[in-house]
Amino acid sequence: MIYLTRRERFNAAHRLFQPALSEEENQRLFGVCANPNYHGHNYQLLVTVRGIPDARTGLVMNLKELSQLIRSEIIDHLDHKNLNLEVPFLQGMVPSCENVAKAIFHRLRPHLKGCELHCVKLIETENNYVEYFGD
Amino acid sequence: MIYLTRRERFNAAHRLFQPALSEEENQRLFGVCANPNYHGHNYQLLVTVRGIPDARTGLVMNLKELSQLIRSEIIDHLDHKNLNLEVPFLQGMVPSCENVAKAIFHRLRPHLKGCELHCVKLIETENNYVEYFGD
Amino acid sequence: MIYLTRRERFNAAHRLFQPALSEEENQRLFGVCANPNYHGHNYQLLVTVRGIPDARTGLVMNLKELSQLIRSEIIDHLDHKNLNLEVPFLQGMVPSCENVAKAIFHRLRPHLKGCELHCVKLIETENNYVEYFGD
Amino acid sequence: MIYLTRRERFNAAHRLFQPALSEEENQRLFGVCANPNYHGHNYQLLVTVRGIPDARTGLVMNLKELSQLIRSEIIDHLDHKNLNLEVPFLQGMVPSCENVAKAIFHRLRPHLKGCELHCVKLIETENNYVEYFGD
Amino acid sequence: MIYLTRRERFNAAHRLFQPALSEEENQRLFGVCANPNYHGHNYQLLVTVRGIPDARTGLVMNLKELSQLIRSEIIDHLDHKNLNLEVPFLQGMVPSCENVAKAIFHRLRPHLKGCELHCVKLIETENNYVEYFGD
Amino acid sequence: MIYLTRRERFNAAHRLFQPALSEEENQRLFGVCANPNYHGHNYQLLVTVRGIPDARTGLVMNLKELSQLIRSEIIDHLDHKNLNLEVPFLQGMVPSCENVAKAIFHRLRPHLKGCELHCVKLIETENNYVEYFGD
Repeated sequence: MIYLTRRERFNAAHRLFQPALSEEENQRLFGVCANPNYHGHNYQLLVTVRGIPDARTGLVMNLKELSQLIRSEIIDHLDHKNLNLEVPFLQGMVPSCENVAKAIFHRLRPHLKGCELHCVKLIETENNYVEYFGD
Repeated sequence: MIYLTRRERFNAAHRLFQPALSEEENQRLFGVCANPNYHGHNYQLLVTVRGIPDARTGLVMNLKELSQLIRSEIIDHLDHKNLNLEVPFLQGMVPSCENVAKAIFHRLRPHLKGCELHCVKLIETENNYVEYFGD
Repeated sequence: MIYLTRRERFNAAHRLFQPALSEEENQRLFGVCANPNYHGHNYQLLVTVRGIPDARTGLVMNLKELSQLIRSEIIDHLDHKNLNLEVPFLQGMVPSCENVAKAIFHRLRPHLKGCELHCVKLIETENNYVEYFGD
Repeated sequence: MIYLTRRERFNAAHRLFQPALSEEENQRLFGVCANPNYHGHNYQLLVTVRGIPDARTGLVMNLKELSQLIRSEIIDHLDHKNLNLEVPFLQGMVPSCENVAKAIFHRLRPHLKGCELHCVKLIETENNYVEYFGD
Repeated sequence: MIYLTRRERFNAAHRLFQPALSEEENQRLFGVCANPNYHGHNYQLLVTVRGIPDARTGLVMNLKELSQLIRSEIIDHLDHKNLNLEVPFLQGMVPSCENVAKAIFHRLRPHLKGCELHCVKLIETENNYVEYFGD
Repeated sequence: MIYLTRRERFNAAHRLFQPALSEEENQRLFGVCANPNYHGHNYQLLVTVRGIPDARTGLVMNLKELSQLIRSEIIDHLDHKNLNLEVPFLQGMVPSCENVAKAIFHRLRPHLKGCELHCVKLIETENNYVEYFGD
C-alpha cells in the first residue's frame, strides 16, 4: 500500500457566518472572521489516495489524471470564488476550513477508481490547517 | 548602510475592478479576478528599511517597533478586510497588487524616523509578487 | 472526526546535556550539541487536536482560543528562554526535541475541552522534527 | 513512542519507462515523463523512525547517525545519478516515486537498531509526494 | 516604477559538460555534476518586469499574459527535457545555471511590450540560484 | 555580469547585549532579546557573488568551492556556538543580525578570487532578515 499526495491551490473569499444566527451572534462566535464584506485566503489542498502500485507502471494512480480530477471537481468550482455565495456544494453550511475539507472529501471520493481516497488536507494559512480522513 | 526587512501578513478579499468601466469591460480586462463576489489572498508584506546601525545597539531599527508600526498603520486596516470596500487609503483605485504596494509605501514612509523606507514587497500568491521602491 | 492543526513558533537556546554524566561523557554522546555555552533554534510547534465540528459553528475548536492556549501554556514559557535553565516543566531532563515535545503534549492535554489532543509535532530545523501522539 | 524524522535531499535524472513495453506504449502511459532523454528532480527524502527515547539521552536515535545511515545507504547511491541506469537496487522497475520510495524503505529497514522504520516519504516536486509505511 | 515578478517551474535533466574538453577534464572541472548519464532539478524561474502601472487597470502587465509568454517561450521548451540535448537555444554552451538564466533573459526580452525585462532569477536547488539583469 | 547565491545554515545562541551598559539598560533597549541565559536561532546565510561566467565552464564560481569557503571561514566558527562568547570575530559588538551580517561580509570578501562579493543576507527568523552590500 502506497499513499500518493497531490497538491492543488485555489484563491477564494469567505466569511465565517451561520445564517441561522443574528449578525451580532456571528460576530461574537467568529470575531473578525465574520466580517460582512468577506476576507480571503490562498488555500492549499492536498489530496492523498492510497493503493497498490500497478505492477507494470509502478503508479498508484496517474498524477495527471489525479490533478485533472481535483481541478474539474473541486478547483474549478472554488478558485476565484466566494465560498459563501457561489459554490453549490458548500451551501447551507459555515464555510469553515473543517466543513470545506469534509465537503471536498465527499465530493471527490466517488470519482476515484482503482485506489481509495485517504485524506483531504486543507491549508488555510501558514499557521492553520485541517485534515479529514472520512467517517 | 544595512537593509533590514520585516515580514507581516494579512488575509483579505478583493476583486480587480475599475468602477469607471462597465462590468463587461472589467471582465474582459481582468478575467476571473473581476468576479463580483470577490476572491481573496493570504498576503505577505515585506517592508525593507535602510540605515546605519546605531553604534551602541547595533540595530538599524528596533524590530518590535517596526513590527508595531506596520501593524498599526497597515495590517490593522487590511487584515480580514475587503480591499475594494473597507480601506479608506485604497479607495478610488483598482486594488491590484501594484496599487496596494504603492499605497502601503506612501502611507508608511512618513512614519520612519532615523532610517529610510527602501522597499515594499507584496506577495499575493506563491507565484506572484510586486516590489515598489518609491518614485 | 476532523483533525485541526495550529502552528506557533518560539526561539530558544539549549544544549543536549545529561547532568548525571560528566562533561566528557556528554560531549561523547551529543557532540557539538553539548556545547557548554549553548546553541539555539527557531522551533516550530504544530499542535493537532481532533474532534467533531460543532454543528452550528462548523469548528472543531475556535482557532483563536487554541492559539491563546498554546501561547499561555507553552510559548510564553519557552520563547526567548534557555530550555536547560529557565523552564520549570523541562527541568530534570535532557531538552532533546523528543523530551520537549513529550512535555508539551502532557502540559497541553488537560486544558483541551470538547476535543482531544492528537499530536504535538516539534520542528527543530528544516531537516529534523519529532511527533508525539501520547502513550 | 516518539516518531523522529530526518530530511535528506538528492538530485537525480529519471524517466518513467517500462522496458517490457514499446516506446510508443510508454509514451501513451507516461506522457512527457517518458521522454527518452530523461528529465530530473530535486528529491526530498523524509525518513521517519519510531521508538522509545533512551532514558539517559532523551533520544530515539542519534540524528547524526541516522543522517549518516541515510547518506551511506541511499543518498550516495542516488545523488547526481540516473535512476534508470545507475542504481543497482532500482533496476528492473519503473523509477516512479512509488517504486523508489518502496525500494528505499526496504533497503533502510535492516540497518535500524533500537528503533523501527516507520515511513519513507519521497517528495518529487512541490506538488507531488508519496509515503510508504511497509507492507 | 513597479517591479512585478512571476514564478514558473520546470523539471529538467542536465549535466555540466563542455564538449570542447575531454571527459576527464570535465570530471575534474565539474565533479559529480558531469556524470555522463545526467542528473536533474526542479528549476524555479522568477521573471521580473518593471514598468509604470496602467492608470486605468493598475497593472504593470497582465499576469496571465506574462505567465503565458514565459510558458510558450521558455517552459514549453525546457520542461521534462534534457538541457544538453533537446533545447535549441541552449546548444553550444554548458547548461550551467548561469548560462541557462542568461539564455532565458535574452530569449524573453524581445517579447515584452509596454514594460521592461528587469531580471531572470533561476533557482536550481534550495541552496543555489543565479540572477541576471542583462548586460 | 551574473549574480550567484549560495545558502548555508547555522544554529547558534545569542543575546542582544551591550556590555558598556547596565543589565537594566540592556533590558530596556532589547527587551526579551536581552535575556541573560540566551535564546537562539536557525540562521540562514545567503552569500551573493557577482562576476562574468567563465567562457569555458559557464560558471561565475565553482559552487562547491564557494560552499567550502563559506563553511571554513564562517559556518565552522558560528554553528552550534554562542555568538556573544565564542566567536573571536564577533567580540566587542552586540551580536545583532546587522552586526553579524556585516562581520561575515568583511571576513569573506578578501577570500574571493575572480569574482566580487556582492551581498550577505542573514535570515534570523521567517519574519526578519538583513542585507549588507559593503560600504
